[in-house]
Amino acid sequence: MTRGRFITFEGGEGAGKSTQLKLLAAALAGQGRDVLPTREPGGATGAEEIRKLLVSGEPGRWDGVTEALLHFAARRDHLTRTVWPALDAGRWVVSDRFADSTMAYQGYGHGLGREPIERLYGVTVGDFAPDLTLILDIPPGTGVARAHSRRDGEDRYERMDLGFHERLREGFLDIASREPGRCVVIDACGTVEQVHAAVLDAVTQRCPS
Amino acid sequence: MTRGRFITFEGGEGAGKSTQLKLLAAALAGQGRDVLPTREPGGATGAEEIRKLLVSGEPGRWDGVTEALLHFAARRDHLTRTVWPALDAGRWVVSDRFADSTMAYQGYGHGLGREPIERLYGVTVGDFAPDLTLILDIPPGTGVARAHSRRDGEDRYERMDLGFHERLREGFLDIASREPGRCVVIDACGTVEQVHAAVLDAVTQRCPS
Repeated sequence: MTRGRFITFEGGEGAGKSTQLKLLAAALAGQGRDVLPTREPGGATGAEEIRKLLVSGEPGRWDGVTEALLHFAARRDHLTRTVWPALDAGRWVVSDRFADSTMAYQGYGHGLGREPIERLYGVTVGDFAPDLTLILDIPPGTGVARAHSRRDGEDRYERMDLGFHERLREGFLDIASREPGRCVVIDACGTVEQVHAAVLDAVTQRCPS
Repeated sequence: MTRGRFITFEGGEGAGKSTQLKLLAAALAGQGRDVLPTREPGGATGAEEIRKLLVSGEPGRWDGVTEALLHFAARRDHLTRTVWPALDAGRWVVSDRFADSTMAYQGYGHGLGREPIERLYGVTVGDFAPDLTLILDIPPGTGVARAHSRRDGEDRYERMDLGFHERLREGFLDIASREPGRCVVIDACGTVEQVHAAVLDAVTQRCPS
């Protein structure tokens, strides 16, 4: 059995990650791949329960370190119950967010810095990493406005101030520049079709059959 | 303002920690101290929500790493919202369990080893530590039988096998032997009054006014 691939979508609020994930999953399925779409925080029974603690309530509900620990707890559950078994079974796993979000949100956005997040990554994930990470880049003002229009109740991060969202964007771009072999930055200001074409192009180049 | 003291009770299921904690808190209050009794996982609003995920459900609900991450998330919330502010205000904080429990349960009991727990401790707690840790030692068979008689529904750990509880006891004793300046092992097989006398003796010697 050939091991599957692990592709992650990253970016700030309202960048279009879930829309693009659905389009990519459909395209890969159309190529005959066995695709598993998933998301973080969540993607497994326990992880979804942890998600509820993270995405609702007041912005100051958790301090940055507590929040990073909760994200990594959900991530560990997601990896052990969902992602790793699927990859072993040859499936292509496409996830709406993964560890780069914790680095960007808590490391850069909340100012914890890279080091504690890297230590948590080591304990939780070890030397595993996505095969490809697509970072959807959009100016924070545009993205947050898009996200607000969803009104899904999961708005704890959206309600953080604009400075936070700017640090977040810089964080994602810095992560991409440090790991160019894994990350591709995609301009998410275009139409859904334009962004999808750029996503497909990156996947074709970086994850050949 | 003189900083308060942080005293923790540790030990396996049914060792009598919560009973002894109440007696110690009353004795310290009788000496005129401002005492805050608390517990882990829990002791703060968010931490109590995380507790619910940890103490109920099936024994195999979380893998050892996920469980350790959840415990440290609850601990961080407890420290930042409850323990550190109380110590700064000069209060004596007495906690039913702290980080030694994660080391004993996940590091020794679940076999993760000391290293990942030490790394999580560094990120979450830094160089802070209890002033005194009282390890209530009891043979696992006796302790689990006592704990079962409580029937409080928080029995996820009690239902793990006896081998687990034996590794736990060895873990606590090993922790104590590594940090004799912080830890005192107390024989918890005696009567409530005998154990309380030993606890008071240790506190008087290790935490003079």
